[in-house]
Amino acid sequence: MATPLRVLVLAGGSGSRFWPLSRRDRPKQLLPFAGGASLLRRTLERLEPLSPASAVWVSTTVELRDAIARELPELPAERIVAEPEGRNTAPAIAWALARMPESGDASAVAVLPSDHHVADAGAFRAALAGAARTAEDRRCVVTLGVPPERAETGFGYLELAAAATDGLEAMPLERFVEKPDAATARAFAASGRHLWNAGIFVFAPEVLFAHLERHQPEIHRAVRAVRSGAGKLDSTAEERLYAELPAVSIDHGVMERLERGEVFTVPLRCGWSDLGSWEALAAVLPGDDSGNHRSGDVLALEARDNVLFADAGTIAVLGVEGLVVVRSGDAVLVVPRERSQEVRRIVAELTRASRRDLL
Amino acid sequence: MATPLRVLVLAGGSGSRFWPLSRRDRPKQLLPFAGGASLLRRTLERLEPLSPASAVWVSTTVELRDAIARELPELPAERIVAEPEGRNTAPAIAWALARMPESGDASAVAVLPSDHHVADAGAFRAALAGAARTAEDRRCVVTLGVPPERAETGFGYLELAAAATDGLEAMPLERFVEKPDAATARAFAASGRHLWNAGIFVFAPEVLFAHLERHQPEIHRAVRAVRSGAGKLDSTAEERLYAELPAVSIDHGVMERLERGEVFTVPLRCGWSDLGSWEALAAVLPGDDSGNHRSGDVLALEARDNVLFADAGTIAVLGVEGLVVVRSGDAVLVVPRERSQEVRRIVAELTRASRRDLL
Repeated sequence: MATPLRVLVLAGGSGSRFWPLSRRDRPKQLLPFAGGASLLRRTLERLEPLSPASAVWVSTTVELRDAIARELPELPAERIVAEPEGRNTAPAIAWALARMPESGDASAVAVLPSDHHVADAGAFRAALAGAARTAEDRRCVVTLGVPPERAETGFGYLELAAAATDGLEAMPLERFVEKPDAATARAFAASGRHLWNAGIFVFAPEVLFAHLERHQPEIHRAVRAVRSGAGKLDSTAEERLYAELPAVSIDHGVMERLERGEVFTVPLRCGWSDLGSWEALAAVLPGDDSGNHRSGDVLALEARDNVLFADAGTIAVLGVEGLVVVRSGDAVLVVPRERSQEVRRIVAELTRASRRDLL
Repeated sequence: MATPLRVLVLAGGSGSRFWPLSRRDRPKQLLPFAGGASLLRRTLERLEPLSPASAVWVSTTVELRDAIARELPELPAERIVAEPEGRNTAPAIAWALARMPESGDASAVAVLPSDHHVADAGAFRAALAGAARTAEDRRCVVTLGVPPERAETGFGYLELAAAATDGLEAMPLERFVEKPDAATARAFAASGRHLWNAGIFVFAPEVLFAHLERHQPEIHRAVRAVRSGAGKLDSTAEERLYAELPAVSIDHGVMERLERGEVFTVPLRCGWSDLGSWEALAAVLPGDDSGNHRSGDVLALEARDNVLFADAGTIAVLGVEGLVVVRSGDAVLVVPRERSQEVRRIVAELTRASRRDLL
């Protein structure tokens, strides 16, 4: 890669699964976890030198735009693209791609989540660079897939035509598979042909636009309107245009509709975690001799295998096992580790009760 | 009782078992639990009209004297008696009795803890009045005993010569029994002859002084010195005197040494709890349909049989059972209910670590 790989970072998520640490104005991608920098900041840091900040665009929401701009002061305002309203990833990605210079439409762009954990940044960049080469050489979409470390039922899978190799070889993607049941997940974990869908896509914009034209023609028309009217459409006109787009994810709306030979997968072996819940944080926070993963001022007596997180103040536990205990701001959360996905039910309940002070 | 029953309230305890709610400067007796008033304030309230504030003395420590005085502004300073240093209950009680007018030495004084819970104040006063009559008529010590509601191993027991009656009849006390093992506790709970020792004693000072003279002569001498030198001993002399007294409890130092006919027991049936731990608080805080006992802003989803206490902020739990979860000030505590007695181990650990900010 002589020129930097362009990157579009998706930073519009609300991340209610990390309540009470995550709040409306401080979603997961803006949180620091096992260190001082936010997940968004670390997403950018691990891209260098492959993709310096000058090659980065960010897609987010109107509500989060200012917070993102404060977190990434090196990005000029026009590269932080806010969806006029939340309409899922297909419109959001197209909207941001439409802001990139048309002259680059034949070279690859990587679309990345902003809230994942990567242990080995070098391996991450190598996979991304390999994916970009494939995307340009074969004029295809490339997905990144993580070889399963366990029979996980919480992820979608990428099913390959043949088992993935140990290197970075791009393999034809057979199909996207929804979150499996436990038995299927066990079969997937053993097959060699099934990788976790890391939600990372690499493609040249002209390739994606062609797919949009076929599978999401309304979105494609909107992209053309924005580009042809660059600087001419006022924000009200843009908002009206955006509000009419189908609210569909890039996965369902485009990727899953592609045919054999249009999508390839590059294996991603970099100590990846989607940090999808407090439970997933256990893999990132250092563990003590008793299997407790801690952050902040924590005292644990005869306690085992807990995730203990205090962003201020002190947590003291005695004799408990397998719990998530979080203290953040004015709220305390206690939930068994294996049910930490259900924290969103608490957020739903607080929303129902109009507890905006806690959201 | 024509004249009010005099009462000595013991309010020198530190109550580390309610950490993090209880702190150095805010021990258990100064905490409000299931209502607005502190346990100390409620101790005084439930005595009226039997013992109005004008008949109340309080024994406490130098450290707590000011806080107690603020909590009970109706008490004149001379009736809040501070131990010069902590030397257990026998010296503390004698020290306070020595401040009472000698003219009252033949009429009863009730010595009460300041940090217990009583559901039925009328029944409590009736038992106390009955005990006072017995103490004066028979010139004896009277203890109050709670008929066991369960095979409790956390209390000492009062063993009677015969089964207690349903009324307020004073029975001769056979012996004091230390905290029993589980099998013994089960036998006690079934015997009818074993009552929980509620730590309440009623006696005429002249009776107690006679027992002190025999069993704790140093303490008796100190009482006489204080009384004969009333207003003449300066505080340094008093402190020196006090520092040499044996640090012994009234139970071990006096009560357990008394002979048959010197101690009687009156049954106490008033919904009594010593509030000895967070677990005991479950009996006082209202329980919801799922057996959760709550105080403060608490959200519980699919959670059962927990004690959830927030003095500020919010606690949210999901899918947990049988836990104590407390948020107070800058600290969070999580411990299984059946181990809530061990909270003092956390306090010990914080003390060892010199975490005065949390003590």
